[in-house]
Amino acid sequence: MFMIKHQNTIEKAVKANHERAFYSQYPEHPKAYGEDAAEQGRQRYEQLLNKPYKQLLQTGETGWAGEEVSPYTQEALGITYPLFTPDELVARATAAAPQWRNTTVDVRADILVETLESVKERFFDIAHATMHTTGQSYMMSFQASGPHANDRALEAIAMGYHEINRFPSSLVWEKPMGKTSLQLQKQFRAIPKGTGLVIGCSTFPVWNSLPGIYADLVTGNPVIVKPHPKAILPIAIAVNAIQQVLQEKGFSPNLCQLAADTSAAPITKQLCEHPGIRLIDYTGGSQFGNYVESLTGKTVFTEKAGVNSVILDSVTDIDAVMQNLAFSVSLYSGQMCTAPQNFFIPAQGVSTAGRQLTFDEVVQKFRDAVVALVTNPKMGAGTLGALQNDTTLQRAHNAGKLGAKMILEGQPVVNEEFAHVRGFTPAILEVNSTDNHIFEQELFGPVLLLIKTKDTEESIQLARQMAGKHGAITCAAYTTSPEVKEKITEAMNNVFTPVSFNFTGFIWVNQHAAFSDFHVTGGNPAGNASFTNPEFILRRFVWVGNREVTGS
Amino acid sequence: MFMIKHQNTIEKAVKANHERAFYSQYPEHPKAYGEDAAEQGRQRYEQLLNKPYKQLLQTGETGWAGEEVSPYTQEALGITYPLFTPDELVARATAAAPQWRNTTVDVRADILVETLESVKERFFDIAHATMHTTGQSYMMSFQASGPHANDRALEAIAMGYHEINRFPSSLVWEKPMGKTSLQLQKQFRAIPKGTGLVIGCSTFPVWNSLPGIYADLVTGNPVIVKPHPKAILPIAIAVNAIQQVLQEKGFSPNLCQLAADTSAAPITKQLCEHPGIRLIDYTGGSQFGNYVESLTGKTVFTEKAGVNSVILDSVTDIDAVMQNLAFSVSLYSGQMCTAPQNFFIPAQGVSTAGRQLTFDEVVQKFRDAVVALVTNPKMGAGTLGALQNDTTLQRAHNAGKLGAKMILEGQPVVNEEFAHVRGFTPAILEVNSTDNHIFEQELFGPVLLLIKTKDTEESIQLARQMAGKHGAITCAAYTTSPEVKEKITEAMNNVFTPVSFNFTGFIWVNQHAAFSDFHVTGGNPAGNASFTNPEFILRRFVWVGNREVTGS
Repeated sequence: MFMIKHQNTIEKAVKANHERAFYSQYPEHPKAYGEDAAEQGRQRYEQLLNKPYKQLLQTGETGWAGEEVSPYTQEALGITYPLFTPDELVARATAAAPQWRNTTVDVRADILVETLESVKERFFDIAHATMHTTGQSYMMSFQASGPHANDRALEAIAMGYHEINRFPSSLVWEKPMGKTSLQLQKQFRAIPKGTGLVIGCSTFPVWNSLPGIYADLVTGNPVIVKPHPKAILPIAIAVNAIQQVLQEKGFSPNLCQLAADTSAAPITKQLCEHPGIRLIDYTGGSQFGNYVESLTGKTVFTEKAGVNSVILDSVTDIDAVMQNLAFSVSLYSGQMCTAPQNFFIPAQGVSTAGRQLTFDEVVQKFRDAVVALVTNPKMGAGTLGALQNDTTLQRAHNAGKLGAKMILEGQPVVNEEFAHVRGFTPAILEVNSTDNHIFEQELFGPVLLLIKTKDTEESIQLARQMAGKHGAITCAAYTTSPEVKEKITEAMNNVFTPVSFNFTGFIWVNQHAAFSDFHVTGGNPAGNASFTNPEFILRRFVWVGNREVTGS
Repeated sequence: MFMIKHQNTIEKAVKANHERAFYSQYPEHPKAYGEDAAEQGRQRYEQLLNKPYKQLLQTGETGWAGEEVSPYTQEALGITYPLFTPDELVARATAAAPQWRNTTVDVRADILVETLESVKERFFDIAHATMHTTGQSYMMSFQASGPHANDRALEAIAMGYHEINRFPSSLVWEKPMGKTSLQLQKQFRAIPKGTGLVIGCSTFPVWNSLPGIYADLVTGNPVIVKPHPKAILPIAIAVNAIQQVLQEKGFSPNLCQLAADTSAAPITKQLCEHPGIRLIDYTGGSQFGNYVESLTGKTVFTEKAGVNSVILDSVTDIDAVMQNLAFSVSLYSGQMCTAPQNFFIPAQGVSTAGRQLTFDEVVQKFRDAVVALVTNPKMGAGTLGALQNDTTLQRAHNAGKLGAKMILEGQPVVNEEFAHVRGFTPAILEVNSTDNHIFEQELFGPVLLLIKTKDTEESIQLARQMAGKHGAITCAAYTTSPEVKEKITEAMNNVFTPVSFNFTGFIWVNQHAAFSDFHVTGGNPAGNASFTNPEFILRRFVWVGNREVTGS
């Protein structure tokens, strides 16, 4: 009999999933983890540099490689990872599967929460690893790859636990037949679909991967974790923590394997098309995402790219709004899938509690708010972080060539701590509503488009059209009119895009809270999956019911 | 304020869905519906013959056509149905959608239960219509198209009601921030995906269509019902009942439209590929089903064909087993998607409570049991029913050409009531386990294959392989050994096929009970959907969460 240790944690998480009020298992304040935790994590991170990462409980590698470079120092981390063939990875997952599949979901969930507790012990190691692979600021690295990711993982565990316990595992079915009755012994089993593959991205290597990893595991499937070759370390540390707990509990560490590869010899497509892979979770660009979605005979969960809109109609306090938006667009230099890109502003301007502001005044206020934030010596560099890769930097550099009116030119970021940071402040461009060849594309990174529309009606129409055609994960809207609010809600919701209204103060459209906000709806081209709606769990297993006539 | 009338019915159904014990809202005994109901239904059915079916609340038809022929009399029913263009159908559905979408699921569920009550008033009309289009016996026609179909529909309504009420429609989210807190007003909306298309089959035109129709409607989507051109009347009567209630309640009858077509000018593909169709439910052959599954940008639910196996290992009472199996294979002449086709019997025979029976003795007992049933003047014709179409008849006629040893030749059915019935008794063939070119195909209708295997191990292996490769909806197994039972369970469940063990007496593998048995698992090539698991409902809408900063 397996002793269930984390029952209370699991049940609270199930309740939180359903109530959708504020809930968090892992505090987002670094100080909650003890005085010395941060420094110890930094030291452990530094000890990993410039050597092979030998901590994984995997054997049979064909070689070692690594190509991570810190966006802050632009120097190589010098870490190499073991390489495995797709066949080897799938064979090991297949061999590990039966014991896990035949373990109850209660025990699986309990062990998985224990793995999260183990990951928690490495939050600060992972924070530094995230910072120096993704370019996120230290605080974002800590929160996104640490407590926020763990909360999302717990959310998936809880949803799996709830769904698999939803129907009785066995019962006697008795049908009245006049004076007698007919009895059947019935058994309901949630049969796992098979080995999962989780394909990570270079900007959120932990936050975007843990939900798929835990969703696969809680439903009884082994998982192979394929990180982006430029951002392996953060998730390698998490996988290692998971493997250690699995082994301690008497299970094979091959239930959760790391599948590192290189830009020169990628193995992602081979893995995707391997007949032994039944489930795929993907985060990244739309082109590869569309390929993954097109694979037949696989159950696929995607989070791809979208173009997020802001609709400005009317506001109470324009300065509060502009400060909020300036922060949203500057945070991690627009490299969040939730960051706004297209700002729809009516030609006649925006009404405020005071007077009507002209279009140009609104533009000026937005420009000023961004400049004030990014040049703020205490806030600027920390908010912007670094650009993960050179493609994003070049895109920002070349914003002037898009053919739009330049409102604010981007500049190299001055970072006192990291003189060689790959950074660029946001470029702001103004276009007309007819310039859709410019704004109908994702300009990932620090490039913003202010689009002058005929009126709010046209703003809504364009934002809706963009979301329906190209996908959207968020939409921010500012209006003081209940009618306009209703119109925006209807229009955006009908292309399956959530709307955040009148955000000011310490809450930003980029943020999606675990246990409350569904992340990506799954209904538009930005992705087919959602963290964590029931479907994200249910499509990983199949209900099978056996029946038996007993003693008659 | 809408008065909810059927709250109690809905809540009991939700509870039944979760408990999965015996439950039924609509009694399966014809007598439960009153003394005169059967005769009145027959009269109403007869009044429909030989004239246009003008009862539908649809206008704008481009013509009238009908080609139904009774498998019992082989005479045309002479009924014509209005024909509509796909564009017209989709346009009307689209226009009807907003009012329904913006109605709460509580009200939608209530109205839908009311429609089932209205369908109930026509159970006997539908029974006769089913009998004379599908060839089912009168009793099966009544039960399958009447109470059993309505129970499945209620199951879908209840699952939709539960899922959409699962998360709060609105709440205040409050995040503690030290001494203060951050508040957001949140709203969660289940946004319907869009117009659904339900494609029916010729053998179970109501039972297989109601789940998709009600799943679409309860989740807020309009639905277009495309019946098989040879079996329109049963579902036309149901659609008519639904339309009348919708209209009475102030909604557009175009929320549920009948889309009749003809064999000469089919419109199914046009509808499937119409950009206005977002959801497709399909029941029928695998070839068209695979086409439906290949459509991109649509959410698709299929119930296709499979090859169902029986594994004979060891039994207590061979005669009880053979009687049970003889009935299973004879019921509606094997035209049920749940009917067994392939019987795997070890070469060394089958052990019983008495002695070990040789292979040939088992074959003989099975043959005898089938002959006894089909030649029984009270039971035979009623159990076999009629063959829906000539293709099935020809397949049975030509069973001798399959290249197998003929154990029992099929014969034309003698039916005292219907001299011209299209009927044929089961043909039984014996093959070896190497004859997979013969048994690896669905032989829809009254053709059975007895497959001589090396041992039960090989029987399991072949049954598993068949289900994995060609799909299976049921598997019957007979064994007195707990070890063998476990092996069969593991093998078949891992290809997502449920097993019915040791069925004797008044329960048959063909039967799947609403509120308890999931019909089709959705995990093997027999179909991707299941009546009614949560996924059958969830994939028809998208959760979208809106947030708002209020008063700060």
